Amino acid sequence: MPAAKTPACIWLMGLPGAGKTTLARALKPILAERTGAAVLLDGDELRSGLCSGLGFEKEDRLENIRRCSEVAKLVLNSDCSVVASCITPYNMQRELIRNTLAGFNISFVYLSASLEVCEQRDPKGLYRKFREQGPYPLTGKGDPFELPTQPVLTIDTGNLSIEQSIDAILEYCLPF
Amino acid sequence: MPAAKTPACIWLMGLPGAGKTTLARALKPILAERTGAAVLLDGDELRSGLCSGLGFEKEDRLENIRRCSEVAKLVLNSDCSVVASCITPYNMQRELIRNTLAGFNISFVYLSASLEVCEQRDPKGLYRKFREQGPYPLTGKGDPFELPTQPVLTIDTGNLSIEQSIDAILEYCLPF
Repeated sequence: MPAAKTPACIWLMGLPGAGKTTLARALKPILAERTGAAVLLDGDELRSGLCSGLGFEKEDRLENIRRCSEVAKLVLNSDCSVVASCITPYNMQRELIRNTLAGFNISFVYLSASLEVCEQRDPKGLYRKFREQGPYPLTGKGDPFELPTQPVLTIDTGNLSIEQSIDAILEYCLPF
Repeated sequence: MPAAKTPACIWLMGLPGAGKTTLARALKPILAERTGAAVLLDGDELRSGLCSGLGFEKEDRLENIRRCSEVAKLVLNSDCSVVASCITPYNMQRELIRNTLAGFNISFVYLSASLEVCEQRDPKGLYRKFREQGPYPLTGKGDPFELPTQPVLTIDTGNLSIEQSIDAILEYCLPF
């Protein structure tokens, strides 16, 4: 067996449509190759399974991210890496994640594509649905996305290509 | 990179004190070596983190196992193996797990040490607490452990050694 490599957690956050899922899917195999194994925790997948009973009010958003951070801890405790892609709109959620995953190699990446860019892309039709059926708590429209107050890598996915974004993330998160 | 190996899920179930955690911890590195990576989902760890808000009434036990099976699915979807060690007392829970993990290589193992043996071992003091502070829903005492109705590997951990148990589990669950 090769020597065990330190697992890492890359936590992608940002508005719906910022590119979280796209980048997470691209990063997962790279992280797996570099650290031995990696588990993808995608917000949409969690919403349809582990967190299926939760809504989008503040309390449920907090519980959603709490569960995701606890799963990340279970995975990291087993020496596997994590790529999480969740909106993670509140600073108190990011604080909770830092506390839950204290002692692990965790990097936050904020995908800062503007609301205009995200609304134009609208890969899942969420913004259109909001315009037609809103208002309700959609991050960026009915619900806030708080700018990070703690150090994070910020990537403007409205201007950078997927390849450029991945290179920047790997350089920041996986310098080893 | 070596060729990807099919991930597997070994789900250990049985009374408190039957040896689930002991065997899961021993199996985890073996499963990781054989399949590339493995995540340990231990019932007690889940109770103190992901499922910390849940109690031991039937509804909460169902939610506890539902969450564990959803986490197992996320891990298996990322091509990592799973060793789960949870009491899993009801047949409807086992059915739920089978449905959630349909299409994956999953094996159930029932550690069938008798209530007398488990109560005598009592590694976490649960049976003593029940005698002193009960009654409450402790599996085996205040709450039932239903015998499996579907095919499972049954191992009498009251009579077999840890090594014998591991050999039997590997032969049944990882014939490849």
